[in-house]
Amino acid sequence: VTSDTEPTVVDDVSSIVERVVSGACDAAAALAESDLNARAALLRRLADALDADSTSLAIQADEETGLGVVRLEGEVARTSGQLRLFAHATLEGSWLEVTLDSASAAIAPRRPDLRRMLIPLGPVAVFSASNFPFAFSVLGGDTASSLAAGCPVVVKAHSGHPTLSQRVAAIAGAVIREAGFPPGTLSLISGQEEGRRLVRHPGIRAGAFTGSQYAGRILFDLAAARSDPIPFYGELGSLNPVVVGPVRSPAAARTIAEGLIASFTMGQGQFCTKPGVVFLPAGTEVPGLVSELLSATGARLLTTSIATAFDSGVQKISNRPGVRRIARGVADTDAAAGGLVPRTPPTVFVTDVAAVLVNQDVLLEECFGPSTVLVEYRDPHELRDALALIPGSLTATVHADDADLGDLVPVIEMLRSRAGRVIFNGWPTGVAVTWSMHHGGPWPATTNALFTSVGVTAMRRFLRPVVYQDAPAEVLPAALRDDNPWHIPRRIDGVLRLPD
Amino acid sequence: VTSDTEPTVVDDVSSIVERVVSGACDAAAALAESDLNARAALLRRLADALDADSTSLAIQADEETGLGVVRLEGEVARTSGQLRLFAHATLEGSWLEVTLDSASAAIAPRRPDLRRMLIPLGPVAVFSASNFPFAFSVLGGDTASSLAAGCPVVVKAHSGHPTLSQRVAAIAGAVIREAGFPPGTLSLISGQEEGRRLVRHPGIRAGAFTGSQYAGRILFDLAAARSDPIPFYGELGSLNPVVVGPVRSPAAARTIAEGLIASFTMGQGQFCTKPGVVFLPAGTEVPGLVSELLSATGARLLTTSIATAFDSGVQKISNRPGVRRIARGVADTDAAAGGLVPRTPPTVFVTDVAAVLVNQDVLLEECFGPSTVLVEYRDPHELRDALALIPGSLTATVHADDADLGDLVPVIEMLRSRAGRVIFNGWPTGVAVTWSMHHGGPWPATTNALFTSVGVTAMRRFLRPVVYQDAPAEVLPAALRDDNPWHIPRRIDGVLRLPD
Repeated sequence: VTSDTEPTVVDDVSSIVERVVSGACDAAAALAESDLNARAALLRRLADALDADSTSLAIQADEETGLGVVRLEGEVARTSGQLRLFAHATLEGSWLEVTLDSASAAIAPRRPDLRRMLIPLGPVAVFSASNFPFAFSVLGGDTASSLAAGCPVVVKAHSGHPTLSQRVAAIAGAVIREAGFPPGTLSLISGQEEGRRLVRHPGIRAGAFTGSQYAGRILFDLAAARSDPIPFYGELGSLNPVVVGPVRSPAAARTIAEGLIASFTMGQGQFCTKPGVVFLPAGTEVPGLVSELLSATGARLLTTSIATAFDSGVQKISNRPGVRRIARGVADTDAAAGGLVPRTPPTVFVTDVAAVLVNQDVLLEECFGPSTVLVEYRDPHELRDALALIPGSLTATVHADDADLGDLVPVIEMLRSRAGRVIFNGWPTGVAVTWSMHHGGPWPATTNALFTSVGVTAMRRFLRPVVYQDAPAEVLPAALRDDNPWHIPRRIDGVLRLPD
Repeated sequence: VTSDTEPTVVDDVSSIVERVVSGACDAAAALAESDLNARAALLRRLADALDADSTSLAIQADEETGLGVVRLEGEVARTSGQLRLFAHATLEGSWLEVTLDSASAAIAPRRPDLRRMLIPLGPVAVFSASNFPFAFSVLGGDTASSLAAGCPVVVKAHSGHPTLSQRVAAIAGAVIREAGFPPGTLSLISGQEEGRRLVRHPGIRAGAFTGSQYAGRILFDLAAARSDPIPFYGELGSLNPVVVGPVRSPAAARTIAEGLIASFTMGQGQFCTKPGVVFLPAGTEVPGLVSELLSATGARLLTTSIATAFDSGVQKISNRPGVRRIARGVADTDAAAGGLVPRTPPTVFVTDVAAVLVNQDVLLEECFGPSTVLVEYRDPHELRDALALIPGSLTATVHADDADLGDLVPVIEMLRSRAGRVIFNGWPTGVAVTWSMHHGGPWPATTNALFTSVGVTAMRRFLRPVVYQDAPAEVLPAALRDDNPWHIPRRIDGVLRLPD
């Protein structure tokens, strides 16, 4: 890390990456050894600093993303709430997985005294997302869970909101300095080549990514191809299938149509959990109601390239035989001509299972933006034939009356095998940040279905076990000492025990 | 799976792999949905069946491995004990990580009812090891932890003990049938090409491997290169450094020399945790005592190829300048001429830090078999220079009096950063199978430092989280129901609660 008095140098890509990773490595020991109270206090101070600048940050974010100040102020609150939840979880201490087995001479060979805990992996590369400029960005969930676990973070900023990223990093830097943590605790870089170098750098011990399947796969492959492979947690594309059972009343049809419209257009359809395909019994009023109720107002997407990809995706769907577009507005081409991101209207298609079976490459693939495909099924067999083709997803949703649930048990099983979260009579958008939340799923939803990027257990991604065998008391970390100074839950001789 | 009445067909590699994986896939749902009591009972019955045939199995294993009947009977007991520990852990239920967050309308947006648990990944490919024909083979730790997690297993037998593998698989098959589980719950294949196909097969959801860095890396790369990458848990080579602090008495020197000899020759040096390098203060009596006390009797290694590789490794070490061989017996070349595995004597080298710094490619690399390298250091700085080059290891060991521990704190930190288990005043060979045991470590000790292959937490490798959101009670799995029918620990609204 350069000191304040050194002259400014013109960095090339390699030296920038070297500098930030070197700073992160320098910070690793201090962060790993920090008292849990100090680490929790750091997370809370970061939360307070975000909240203090909420409106100004939301205005900045809106300029760069067009997501709207109200939504973005809400996202700041979610992000600070997330930091505070991790502060709370850090102190609770279950995540250390402390497990103590006492020595026993009664067993042959003698069983030694064994004390297991989790320790931080080291510096983490966090790749921030376009669609959540706070919650999945510089101080988002990946950063919060890394810091809570005791790992320094190097954030690769998303090109969609560079100024906001720098502002948030500056706020974080000031808090980190005031809290007495090393400057390498959190740093920011930008650029695709910088990102690729980051994930290959020997000092980086794990990667966390939210974005496209294409970019995520490139980085995953780089991480796996290292001479010392590192874990790379990518949250990639997700189709988020919805299955609607028998629709028993016009009111039920209207509830579903309204709920679907609200969900697939939320954030201009740019949510990882947007419902991309909806299986409906043939002959319901739902498609008609969706067509009638959908406002066709175009909305600005995050970036020009996202808007272009969305238009191309929608066009591909339109061109497939057996697919009918039932709602679409007019794109605001003036904006495109003026160099701004064009306004893209929400679009809904209707088709049947036969068309899905031959067009799964397009109809069962994520189309990022405000579109969804209604698939009418004639009977449960047809439904299951289609569901068998559904790729791994973050979520899967079932709408059914209690009386119809019994018949849907095989469908629920199929959905569970392909998803990380199964939702009943609700919608997948909106991810509560809680102890139990799981935001993950089988490939291609993520590169690693064992972990989540949202919720308290996200910390586990950045920790590894270590065991002390017959260690003298004076060298044991606090978490492993007999007197349990941190008052955390621990398993002792096989029995889980709560602190007094 | 072919039925009993079908005619026998001549299988090629591809159809054998198809058949076993198809059987495993067929078994996956029954195993995943099995009651915890039934699953635990299966594990205990497998343990009982091994114990019932212990002597006969040990004799068979000795014929194929030369490890000795006494040691092998002990290994059967360890293996059945391991199965029983997983039976116990299965019922205890913490591994399900059940986490329940109740709905709250007080939060905006409303927080739904969220219920998280871990579910089985699906069929696991287990690659068994040469050096533990029971504990890391057909019914070894990887298989036990997979079955406990609810995942069917396809074992790729090690070529070093094919007949034993078939016998154990037959015993397991009978138990599985009698316990009412599907035949695809456990199956056996053999052959390198079969193994490679296994890890690439779409039906396989994870791999677990114990063996060489070379073979493990090939399989890891295949798993990562799949269109849907799967986790591959490889336990590869390990150097297992030992650091000896000041040696305060002749008795202490003798204790260290005797302990080292017992440890590095245990199992003919063919343990993953064999101490491969020992850092000693310059001028102690330890090298002389090792030289004096070491019996030079050659012992048969597991296979001819392991014996050849060991001879070559020892030769490479001998050839480096500054390295002195202080103990070596005579190889039994008659055995080699007769087509048997030659008897290879234990070998000890002595060198200094200067030689290590320029020969780390050979001196700081695992040499599988009965050899170890003593490195004499002159001062703490020299010691730390050498330790900085130590690769990731399963274990690291410190020998020191309590009075010297304070000075060794930086050394302990360095060792912990490079190892999964840190041992004090003991030896790394002999891995107790307990709740807390960690058998893993940074690359190249394993492909994934986050997990263990020994101990209860090995189950976590084969599980992924799933969340039920606002699910009606009648579709909830038992583990998530309000009445906690399995009486397992659960986290409710952020608070960990033990069953009554």
